Amino acid sequence: MLRFALLVIVLIVPQQGAVQPSQTGAGNAVAEGPNYTANGELKMPERYREWIFLTSGVDMSYSPNAAMAGHSMFDNVFVNPSAHRAFLETGTWPDKTTLVLEIRGSEGASSINKRGHTQSPEIMGLEVHVKDAKLEGGWGFYEFDGPKSAKVIKRPAGCYECHEGHAAVDTTFVQFYPTLLGLAKSKGTLSAAYLKEMGAAAGSK
Amino acid sequence: MLRFALLVIVLIVPQQGAVQPSQTGAGNAVAEGPNYTANGELKMPERYREWIFLTSGVDMSYSPNAAMAGHSMFDNVFVNPSAHRAFLETGTWPDKTTLVLEIRGSEGASSINKRGHTQSPEIMGLEVHVKDAKLEGGWGFYEFDGPKSAKVIKRPAGCYECHEGHAAVDTTFVQFYPTLLGLAKSKGTLSAAYLKEMGAAAGSK
Repeated sequence: MLRFALLVIVLIVPQQGAVQPSQTGAGNAVAEGPNYTANGELKMPERYREWIFLTSGVDMSYSPNAAMAGHSMFDNVFVNPSAHRAFLETGTWPDKTTLVLEIRGSEGASSINKRGHTQSPEIMGLEVHVKDAKLEGGWGFYEFDGPKSAKVIKRPAGCYECHEGHAAVDTTFVQFYPTLLGLAKSKGTLSAAYLKEMGAAAGSK
Repeated sequence: MLRFALLVIVLIVPQQGAVQPSQTGAGNAVAEGPNYTANGELKMPERYREWIFLTSGVDMSYSPNAAMAGHSMFDNVFVNPSAHRAFLETGTWPDKTTLVLEIRGSEGASSINKRGHTQSPEIMGLEVHVKDAKLEGGWGFYEFDGPKSAKVIKRPAGCYECHEGHAAVDTTFVQFYPTLLGLAKSKGTLSAAYLKEMGAAAGSK
């Protein structure tokens, strides 16, 4: 019986060692990747703000929303922690990678900040990019404007065309992720499209 | 003996349940808080990019470095996960809270981005703000410009004066952390200095 109890310890401990949502704040293994509703819609990853931050841009023009809105906005990008760890090892994304683009309002002078821009509490948009082998092309885009779940954006669509034609790694804009670009270079995972674009840009200087 | 073994389970499991560095990527419990060298210098938290992202600002004027450099920069702010969890519960920071300000270069048009600004791989500065009861005033600032450890900035200094005179919560600029400001309001932890400043700003409109 004691041996069984010890066996139980061995069996329990690795499970306890799995990601602890309440302690890491990063969601558990199930919550981390894409979760779908019964009818195949993607559920909004609720705790993406506790994921890994990749970058923040301001007033970038490749987002159709930002261009249309006509006022200043920030784009914050987050990725689920296990996909980030895989990228650090391989220079590319594993299946089930989930990237969240949070579009947030930008404020000018406020409180002690007298110039430049800071982020406001107002979220202007949420877009999610999921790598899932069951999707056509291996990746899907989803846009959330209020609802808790969203249908995949069907091809053809500008988002797929733009990411596939210009993104540095596996249809993702790693050229704007400052901690990952050098890693992708060293791992040799930069896309042919991106290398061609960079080569053309260098040649024109 | 079996009872003892079960007691061991109970004692072991909570420890195994502590943050798992290899699984969360967020550092372990020891690495999370401030770590000091034998001579009392603060060690740079090496994995702060896996901590909780609070905000990113661009070209803000309250950073003396940004004002002096004269070109565009982003300020990214991260906090250790356990301090973030405590803030979500209490609206303020626990002892050993560690906030990292990463100052990063800003690029204009590059690759497919035709306007606005994106973050560059170049880190222009790293500043750390630590809550530690053993420090005068309960908080210390540290500036890292290359070395792996830094001495606390001695009082009096502009950083202390500015944070104590204007910061929304416990000498930290929660007014610029979009996910935390509303929480601090609802918990009643906004500083008297900040409330007075906001009241004066509203009154002058």
